[in-house]
Amino acid sequence: MKTRAAVAFAAGKPLEICDVDLEGPKEGEVLVEVKATGICHTDAFTLSGGDPEGIFPSILGHEGAGVVVDVGPGVKTLKKGDHVIPLYTPECRECEYCLNPKTNLCQKIRVTQGQGLMPDGSSRFSLDGKPLFHYMGCSTFANHTVLPEIALAKVRQDAPFDKICYIGCGVTTGIGAVVNTAKVEPGSNVVVFGLGGIGLNVIQGAKMVGANMIVGVDLNPARKALGEQFGMTHFVNPKEIDGDIVGHLVELTGGGADYSFECIGNVTTMRQALECAHKGWGESIIIGVAGAGQEISTRPFQLVTGRSWRGTAFGGARGRTDVPKIVDWYMDGKIDIDSLITHTMPLDEINEGFHLMHEGKSIRSVVVY
Amino acid sequence: MKTRAAVAFAAGKPLEICDVDLEGPKEGEVLVEVKATGICHTDAFTLSGGDPEGIFPSILGHEGAGVVVDVGPGVKTLKKGDHVIPLYTPECRECEYCLNPKTNLCQKIRVTQGQGLMPDGSSRFSLDGKPLFHYMGCSTFANHTVLPEIALAKVRQDAPFDKICYIGCGVTTGIGAVVNTAKVEPGSNVVVFGLGGIGLNVIQGAKMVGANMIVGVDLNPARKALGEQFGMTHFVNPKEIDGDIVGHLVELTGGGADYSFECIGNVTTMRQALECAHKGWGESIIIGVAGAGQEISTRPFQLVTGRSWRGTAFGGARGRTDVPKIVDWYMDGKIDIDSLITHTMPLDEINEGFHLMHEGKSIRSVVVY
Repeated sequence: MKTRAAVAFAAGKPLEICDVDLEGPKEGEVLVEVKATGICHTDAFTLSGGDPEGIFPSILGHEGAGVVVDVGPGVKTLKKGDHVIPLYTPECRECEYCLNPKTNLCQKIRVTQGQGLMPDGSSRFSLDGKPLFHYMGCSTFANHTVLPEIALAKVRQDAPFDKICYIGCGVTTGIGAVVNTAKVEPGSNVVVFGLGGIGLNVIQGAKMVGANMIVGVDLNPARKALGEQFGMTHFVNPKEIDGDIVGHLVELTGGGADYSFECIGNVTTMRQALECAHKGWGESIIIGVAGAGQEISTRPFQLVTGRSWRGTAFGGARGRTDVPKIVDWYMDGKIDIDSLITHTMPLDEINEGFHLMHEGKSIRSVVVY
Repeated sequence: MKTRAAVAFAAGKPLEICDVDLEGPKEGEVLVEVKATGICHTDAFTLSGGDPEGIFPSILGHEGAGVVVDVGPGVKTLKKGDHVIPLYTPECRECEYCLNPKTNLCQKIRVTQGQGLMPDGSSRFSLDGKPLFHYMGCSTFANHTVLPEIALAKVRQDAPFDKICYIGCGVTTGIGAVVNTAKVEPGSNVVVFGLGGIGLNVIQGAKMVGANMIVGVDLNPARKALGEQFGMTHFVNPKEIDGDIVGHLVELTGGGADYSFECIGNVTTMRQALECAHKGWGESIIIGVAGAGQEISTRPFQLVTGRSWRGTAFGGARGRTDVPKIVDWYMDGKIDIDSLITHTMPLDEINEGFHLMHEGKSIRSVVVY
């Protein structure tokens, strides 16, 4: 079949809207009509050429929501008409990782996904007879896409696509880091570095689970009001602090953060996030993705005196199990997504969505098909 | 009263055996006759002058066992004749730290202990009318010493002092790191960097809790037999490995260590220990103490893909609660201490004990009074 897609032909170039060819689903695969997709920093990172694993030409996009149009042989858990959210971290429920309750990093299709291919080693997309690569196993910048059954979370039918698409990455990453990775307890003091989309979702996750102080740290004073809207109790702008930001945060929290979250991808703030954690029990969770080759450092004394340094990917969520729950939280009003989606646009204007992100004008832009 | 002690008059000088003056116990304090004391790397580190918090003249030693001789006013949990192990990490059971189940780092007397003083801000030791400082709140290189009640674990009377003194530091640090900090589960694969006294205790702790592979890493081939005696299943000498030690360990363990322990104090092996931990769930625990100002580094990707970097002090043990249990484990034959105590000597020969340690000839030397 033909479908419209925004194609990334080369690093550093704008996306081009094309009618591309899409093969139907093979064994264990599902054809999805994408109804909406968010534009995430990770898409921009790959498009920029900074991602050493980026492959071109490809169809980017990994934060979508849509409807099942067709299923291949052997697909048992999904049928035509089901509403789904694509999962760049799948959940096969049978690999060594899925069977270990300590991780969400299903490895079942990792190798081919990293190569921009379906599990059988081929691509379903092509243009003029030449293959286009899949991206993060999702390629939601196409109106139709094919995914393995294990990479689709089935969600309720009354949830709006143009909002829940954001659960496919940013919402789950932020809220999941609080709920699944850190397991923040009620009454905890939390410090969040970076009040972009991820940081704001960390804040509302911390509020949802009953945190006490929720301290947001950002250089942009405009983020204060937004943070407060999501549950932030204290705002710290490092530019306005005399002296050491770590000391300031330790004092503000009465000894340090029970949990700190780094949502920027900056190795300096990663260190600050660790060191502002409470002696004895503070945990610091890295969410942001640092540039290639960059390293984090600290004195080992920070760990020996009881701090833990951890990280999280996709919020520690097992997508098929946890994503439908987060959709419920949204529909039940426990979390806010609407305020985070600052811009919507048709596929034709997708490059404008990237532009708004780079300008810092959007929290999240969503393409609606 | 007078008591014999090995006094550290200055950094870098041998200890001198003197008859020193010791005041009796004040409110909340206990006079202990030390029966035996281990000589630990930490004593040597302070004596060398490398410890920025070292204070002289002082009476070192923190790994002792003895008998209560007298108690000061208000002491309720100990009486004359009780057998005790001094605790450099006390357990007051009422500070913010003791009341948080995530830490063992009681802070009740931390400030004065760091100043070489009793909680009232004075020293009990003196020589020719001039005060001698306490050390780590213990000063077990004196035949008699005074400690706060909260810094003494009461232990069974049938346990031999010249063995259980080692539970005052090394045994608890190693076994506790496995049992309390990492909480190693049966069937786990464990990698231990450094097969000195701490590393061997990590190994026997891992064996006790039913670990599967217990891999020891050391440059000294003589440590292979000793490690195996304590439960090590595989020995790796980095000198004998072609290529990357991390890759070798990941392959040997079939994907990485579920838990790794750094027992050397070397920031390079700390990084290796983290990076040989299993993707998704591996935890690396720093036990060794690095030199002043040294830093650990890694790529944050190591954490984002599911590894945790942690540390432990005194094996995460709450001394008054946990040390008596470890004494029981020794008396029940669950752990071996005898084989680790390679040398015993009278107080007069204590400098020989330091010499044996520096030469790498001893695992543990014990002074028997």
